[in-house]
Amino acid sequence: MTAFGTRLRAALDAHGPLCVGIDPHEHLLTEWGVDVSAAGVREFGLRVVEAASGRAGVVKPQVAFFERFGSAGFAALEDVLSAARGAGLVVIADAKRGDIGTTMDGYAAAWLTAGSPLEADAVTLSPYLGADSLRATLTTAVRHDKGAFVLAATSNPEAFALQSAQVVDVAAGDGQTVAERVARDIAWVNGSAAFAGGLGPVGLVVGATVDRAAVGLSDEALRGAPILAPGFGAQGAAPEDLPALFGAAASHVVASESRSILSAGPADIAARIAERAELYREALRG
Amino acid sequence: MTAFGTRLRAALDAHGPLCVGIDPHEHLLTEWGVDVSAAGVREFGLRVVEAASGRAGVVKPQVAFFERFGSAGFAALEDVLSAARGAGLVVIADAKRGDIGTTMDGYAAAWLTAGSPLEADAVTLSPYLGADSLRATLTTAVRHDKGAFVLAATSNPEAFALQSAQVVDVAAGDGQTVAERVARDIAWVNGSAAFAGGLGPVGLVVGATVDRAAVGLSDEALRGAPILAPGFGAQGAAPEDLPALFGAAASHVVASESRSILSAGPADIAARIAERAELYREALRG
Repeated sequence: MTAFGTRLRAALDAHGPLCVGIDPHEHLLTEWGVDVSAAGVREFGLRVVEAASGRAGVVKPQVAFFERFGSAGFAALEDVLSAARGAGLVVIADAKRGDIGTTMDGYAAAWLTAGSPLEADAVTLSPYLGADSLRATLTTAVRHDKGAFVLAATSNPEAFALQSAQVVDVAAGDGQTVAERVARDIAWVNGSAAFAGGLGPVGLVVGATVDRAAVGLSDEALRGAPILAPGFGAQGAAPEDLPALFGAAASHVVASESRSILSAGPADIAARIAERAELYREALRG
Repeated sequence: MTAFGTRLRAALDAHGPLCVGIDPHEHLLTEWGVDVSAAGVREFGLRVVEAASGRAGVVKPQVAFFERFGSAGFAALEDVLSAARGAGLVVIADAKRGDIGTTMDGYAAAWLTAGSPLEADAVTLSPYLGADSLRATLTTAVRHDKGAFVLAATSNPEAFALQSAQVVDVAAGDGQTVAERVARDIAWVNGSAAFAGGLGPVGLVVGATVDRAAVGLSDEALRGAPILAPGFGAQGAAPEDLPALFGAAASHVVASESRSILSAGPADIAARIAERAELYREALRG
């Protein structure tokens, strides 16, 4: 197996930044004419995977919509993860897990271990218990050629107060924000290994429409880490905005869209994915 | 169904503050002589439930240790949750979920909805996306007579920088910490409904050994909300410390122990639970 950053780089180079969110909302299940059930989310997920295959490099199943149906929903998710990996897509499980110590080992065993039924290529993590509490998980990810994306700054308005709060750290002597601290706390992973020509294995989640200056995320803070950027499509940012929004980091942004693609319905989703993917590639070429 | 706060108050009044953590670590499964598998975590969980029944009021299964085994692990967790609720225990699913909008609706449907296979009495939530992003979930909890515990301040050392960071809020004109902001952001739930004689439905996770002054969690900030306090037992705090650690809030603390109880093994766990539960009751009487 090659390192996660290398696989991600290859996927972005081949297909461009688009990441297809697999978000089987109840209303989408109904629009697509599938059951609101574990069988329905399985069918929905497999159809999205089929449409994405060869047209985008990355997919991101949202775990909550499968978890909603309990163990049957997780069995459906296992099938979707397996189909997506089998199709050569880079699969980011959007689980936003975050805990400490041996509890995190449980999550790492679930999502980042070869042969686990929930095996993905990467998982999203939440750092409320301190990004440093994820250290062992990130080490496990690297060891298994897996990746992770740690929440840094998100574009929902309720998030700003927390993510822009100033860390009081007498030793550091500066007023870094929480989001900046997260970026610094994970930087060692990407810096300490040789990922020549690729990307580091551990990225950040940074919403496309976030005011990066206000939360302290300079281009420098984003250096080396892949960026998972929700907020494109129905959530506000356009593909052509990518270079302006992310500056020097634009070449390693994974631009996630869900509703704008899934709303095409089962008959048109493949064409919609191809069309949106091309818009991002054009933006980067331009 | 009665409100979650009322059920929790009754459980604490009947059995005292002890909450038994159901943490089927791999090394504990081996010590207990059960398989390291989904079947093993099911057996382990069911035995802990049986031992806790009638001896403690609250149990807290750690979801990560079940998730580790994928859908089969979730099926085991479903059985453990169902057995615990059937035994009249108040069940807190320690999932630390946190997301936004309709994604959180998925988690609420999973954990806080009657008839869901993963139905619990309450779930733990993580507020990195802003405690206000959990507003709809908390409303759902109240409507379904369920509860939630939102992470505020935890005792792992890596957490302090984030949880003590100062919110920059010109309108508020003060330097509240992230943990304090979380406490304020959830206060409306417990204040807006009539829970006469009981506790509010939404609590906070506050580690037993946290320096509450340093993270801005005064007795006033904890008023009305049930407190889920990990950090007792093997993690450092003793039952007799409870009144001094939590002051005026001690009467509504749920004191969680895991390793200190589970290490007793299957033969002795019932006696250990009874003994630890009595120590907490003595502490509150003293």
